[in-house]
Amino acid sequence: MYVVAEKEIAGLMTPAAAFEAIEAMFASMASRKAYNFPVVREAIGYEDALYGFKGGFDGAGLVLGLKAGGYWPHNQKHNLINHQSTVFLFDPDTGRVKAAIGGNLLTALRTAAASAVSIKYLAPKGAKVLGMIGAGHQSAFQMRAAAVHQFEKVVGWNPHPEMLSRLADTAAELGLPFEAVELDQLGADADVIVSITSSFAPMLMDGHVKGATHIAAMGTDTKGKQELDPALVARARVFTDEVAQSVSIGETQHAVASGLIAESAISELGAVVAGLHEGRGTAEVTLFDGTGVGLQDLAVANKVLEIAIEKGIAQRSKSDPSGARNTPARRNRSGRAIR
Amino acid sequence: MYVVAEKEIAGLMTPAAAFEAIEAMFASMASRKAYNFPVVREAIGYEDALYGFKGGFDGAGLVLGLKAGGYWPHNQKHNLINHQSTVFLFDPDTGRVKAAIGGNLLTALRTAAASAVSIKYLAPKGAKVLGMIGAGHQSAFQMRAAAVHQFEKVVGWNPHPEMLSRLADTAAELGLPFEAVELDQLGADADVIVSITSSFAPMLMDGHVKGATHIAAMGTDTKGKQELDPALVARARVFTDEVAQSVSIGETQHAVASGLIAESAISELGAVVAGLHEGRGTAEVTLFDGTGVGLQDLAVANKVLEIAIEKGIAQRSKSDPSGARNTPARRNRSGRAIR
Repeated sequence: MYVVAEKEIAGLMTPAAAFEAIEAMFASMASRKAYNFPVVREAIGYEDALYGFKGGFDGAGLVLGLKAGGYWPHNQKHNLINHQSTVFLFDPDTGRVKAAIGGNLLTALRTAAASAVSIKYLAPKGAKVLGMIGAGHQSAFQMRAAAVHQFEKVVGWNPHPEMLSRLADTAAELGLPFEAVELDQLGADADVIVSITSSFAPMLMDGHVKGATHIAAMGTDTKGKQELDPALVARARVFTDEVAQSVSIGETQHAVASGLIAESAISELGAVVAGLHEGRGTAEVTLFDGTGVGLQDLAVANKVLEIAIEKGIAQRSKSDPSGARNTPARRNRSGRAIR
Repeated sequence: MYVVAEKEIAGLMTPAAAFEAIEAMFASMASRKAYNFPVVREAIGYEDALYGFKGGFDGAGLVLGLKAGGYWPHNQKHNLINHQSTVFLFDPDTGRVKAAIGGNLLTALRTAAASAVSIKYLAPKGAKVLGMIGAGHQSAFQMRAAAVHQFEKVVGWNPHPEMLSRLADTAAELGLPFEAVELDQLGADADVIVSITSSFAPMLMDGHVKGATHIAAMGTDTKGKQELDPALVARARVFTDEVAQSVSIGETQHAVASGLIAESAISELGAVVAGLHEGRGTAEVTLFDGTGVGLQDLAVANKVLEIAIEKGIAQRSKSDPSGARNTPARRNRSGRAIR
C-alpha cells in the first residue's frame, strides 16, 4: 500500500493537474462509465463531529475507492484544521487497498478545479471580469483555479468586508487588478461569477446580474444553504456535477422545491465536456451548481498518486494491509492452522 | 498512521481476543453507546465485484471507522482469495486516520466470535453436543470459536458430504470426537447448532430440532439467503446483532415477511451481555441470527491494533496521510502559497 502524506500534496499537485483530472472525471460520469455511491454522512454525537464516506467507481480510468473523514469543529484546540479527510484507493481488479492519501488540500483543489472546468466550458466568449463572492479560506483556491481563463480584472464582495484582503492578495499573486464592489456592481461588471460562501440566504439577486454571465455557485452543499436568488437560478441554463445531489443539497434545491425549475432541466457539466450537450448555446446566463462528489476526490487522489509514484515520493508500507494469498493454510503462534 | 498487514494478523489475534472485543462491542451497541452507519454495497459492474463500506462509531470504546472492500469472484486468477477487505480506524477526537488493518482474517474471526458470544449467553445449561451445518472455509473458524464452551462431541452435516473432512479435522484439532450425521439426527442430538452455509433454501426444519437447543444461524447475510425453516424461527426466542439488518438481510427476513414473527419480538444479543435482557429464560429453543455489522469489524481491528502496537509489530508510515496542521500558509514548488 502506498501512503502519500498530507504534507506532500502541496509540492506534488498543481491546479492544472487537478483541472485535468476533474475534467476527465466529469466526462466519465456523463458517459456513465463512472458513478458515485450513496453518501454516508453521520453526526456521531462526539466532539460535534460530522463523519462519513463518499465513494465511487470510474470504469474508464479504473479508479475505485472513497474519501473518509469529515468536520471536527473543535480541532483548533489540537492545532489542526476542522476539515480532516483521507482518500483510500483500491485496485478494481482485485479489491485490494492500493493507497491512503491525505485528502485535505485535495478537497480544496478539486472544488476549485470543478468551477474552473465550468468556466472553460460555459463562460461567455471574451469574458474579461471575474467576480468573487466570498473571501474565506476556499476563495483563494477558487480564484487561482479560475485563472485557467485569461481574466483582466477581479471584482469581489464578501459579507465581512474586512476579509477582502484575501481576494486582493490572491489577485495580486495572479497579476490581476482587484476592486472591492457591492453586489449590484459585481453582477453588472463580472462576466464570470464564482460564489463560495456558507450562506443560508440568497445574496446574489436576479436583478444584480446583467448581460452574458456564467455563475459557478460552489458554496451550497447542505440542505438549507443558499447563495442565489431562485429567480436567477430559474433564468439560467443550469449545469451541475450530479443532478441528484444538486436538487437535494445543492443550490438548485430551492428553485426546484418552489417549482421554478424542473429537475429535468438540469444538465451535467460532464455532458458538455464529453460533447453530448452544446453547453451555453444561446443562453444569457449559465449556472454551474458545484456540490462536490466522491469521484472528484478519487480523481485528484489518483492523479497525485501517479505523480508521487513517478517522483518516488509515495511511501510504500513494508507489507500490504490487504491481499491475503490463496494459500491452503497458515499457522498462528500456537501452531494452530488458520484457514 | 499505523499499518497492520494482513499477514501479521494470524500471529497477533486469537479467538479469545476476538471474543472479548465482540462481547464488549455487542454490549456497547445494546446500551446505545455504539451504532452502525448505513451500509454501502455496490455491484460496480467490473469483474463481477461487490464493493462497499460498513462503518460505525463506538462512543464507549472510542472506536471510529469503517471496513471497505468486498467480493471479487475471479480472484483465483490473481492467486488471491475472493473476499478482500481493509479496516480503517480514525481518531474520534480529531478525524485523522489512525490505522489501516488487513480485514480478511479479521472478518472470519469476528463472525466466529459473534456465534461464540451467543453460545456463552444462550446455550442451554449443560450443553454437551455441538452440531455444525456447513463445512466451507468459515466452518473451521466457527467451530474453534465455539470451543469457548466445553463441548464433548461434534456432529456435522454438509450438503456436499465430501467436504466433511474439514469438520472432522477441526474437531480433532480441538480434541473432540466427530460424527457425520443426517440433519434429523443433528437436530435431535445437538444442544448447540451453528449453521454456516450459503444456502438459499431452508435446510434445518422445525421437526429436526428436539429439546433445549441454541441455534446460531451465521450464513444468511443477503436478501434471499435462508438456512432455517421459518416455523423453527417462529418457535425460537430470537436474538440478533442488529435488528434492522436481521429483518432485512438476515435469517429472520423470511419469518418476518410471512408474518410468523414480529420485528418487535427480536432482541439484541448485546442486551443479554449488558444485563438488560434475561436471555434464554424458559425458552426451549433460542436463535442467534448473526448478520455481521461494521462495529464487529472495528472492534476486532481495534483490538489487533492494540496488540500490534504493544508488540511493536504495527508499522508506522513516516508521515500521516491526514492531519494538516492549522498553519497560516505553505508553499508549493512554484513558490506559490497554498492556503
